[in-house]
Amino acid sequence: MPYVNIRVTKEGVTAEQKLELIKGATELLQRVLNKNPATTFVIIDEVETDNWGIGYDNVTTLRANAAAKAKAG
Amino acid sequence: MPYVNIRVTKEGVTAEQKLELIKGATELLQRVLNKNPATTFVIIDEVETDNWGIGYDNVTTLRANAAAKAKAG
Amino acid sequence: MPYVNIRVTKEGVTAEQKLELIKGATELLQRVLNKNPATTFVIIDEVETDNWGIGYDNVTTLRANAAAKAKAG
Amino acid sequence: MPYVNIRVTKEGVTAEQKLELIKGATELLQRVLNKNPATTFVIIDEVETDNWGIGYDNVTTLRANAAAKAKAG
Amino acid sequence: MPYVNIRVTKEGVTAEQKLELIKGATELLQRVLNKNPATTFVIIDEVETDNWGIGYDNVTTLRANAAAKAKAG
Amino acid sequence: MPYVNIRVTKEGVTAEQKLELIKGATELLQRVLNKNPATTFVIIDEVETDNWGIGYDNVTTLRANAAAKAKAG
Repeated sequence: MPYVNIRVTKEGVTAEQKLELIKGATELLQRVLNKNPATTFVIIDEVETDNWGIGYDNVTTLRANAAAKAKAG
Repeated sequence: MPYVNIRVTKEGVTAEQKLELIKGATELLQRVLNKNPATTFVIIDEVETDNWGIGYDNVTTLRANAAAKAKAG
Repeated sequence: MPYVNIRVTKEGVTAEQKLELIKGATELLQRVLNKNPATTFVIIDEVETDNWGIGYDNVTTLRANAAAKAKAG
Repeated sequence: MPYVNIRVTKEGVTAEQKLELIKGATELLQRVLNKNPATTFVIIDEVETDNWGIGYDNVTTLRANAAAKAKAG
Repeated sequence: MPYVNIRVTKEGVTAEQKLELIKGATELLQRVLNKNPATTFVIIDEVETDNWGIGYDNVTTLRANAAAKAKAG
Repeated sequence: MPYVNIRVTKEGVTAEQKLELIKGATELLQRVLNKNPATTFVIIDEVETDNWGIGYDNVTTLRANAAAKAKAG
């Protein structure tokens, strides 16, 4: 009866992609630890890019910097 | 000083129901472990049904299947 | 299919008390939101008192202060 | 590679304040434990005041009570 | 930069199995959402069977019941 | 009334360091958002290096590789 919590930035993840994550995580737990899919929870949290920081910056800025760099490049 | 995190699917939970969950969880910690309500946090997370998976499926589909079955029945 | 996570300090919670928390939280979700107990998870995390802070202090110190006060009183 | 999750009530936290939290938490982990900022995640969750309980009440009510008291005072 | 938290009961999961979970979850996020493995965290929490409840019972009891049934069968 | 959860690898963090994290996180929330320290929780989770993955590997291996490199260097 595992619980899997996947946290990603909220950047247009589609319902299809979410379902792939759910299926993939459930399959992983079944394959590696023989866990029962019927009691495997997968919960996806989508986090605003302003609310996710890494390396002293938020993801909003990281994405803007990457886009500017791509344009300049 | 307990911390209780209740995660449920986002399916129309009312403010009254949330308050009942808060009161019930606080009372539970006070009764069983004599915890002080003044420092008992209860946080309710409502999760979109597309973002919650169980048994290789998402809850959106599970609810649709159940509704179809009820209608057919 | 709720997920309830109860975090308390690790201070001798017994298996019986844990079971009371499990039963109480499951009953709460069933009563308030009509959730199915068969897919209600309750997970209890016990946290060392050195690892839990409140009001600029850790619980280890808060407990020691309270004990000293009780003795002095 | 620390993971820091900050949960606060959703009451108008600005992007600038979020960035201060991200910077402050990252600096803290670097200063105290010499952790690499490049792999330090800070995730801020904003929780509706109806969904956060303390002392048998929700924060919505606590705020309303405080505002009424301030007005009466 | 995803964060994946896998919670399972503490029942002899080996370091090899944990590594398989880490690899599988990282691969899943890379495949479905094109996330960078260098900033994908996977954290596995092992929870004592007394501390995990489902269906009004703890996993310690569920395992004992299943073992008794298997023996009787 | 914020809740701060700091997750780090279990690699000899001392009680003094934990207290510094508690004080620093509490001060951060008070300074940036004017939150009351009396209801600010800071919880530190120490995670075994086998249980923390990044970049398709666990931290146990990352640490061993870094040590071997340092020795060779």
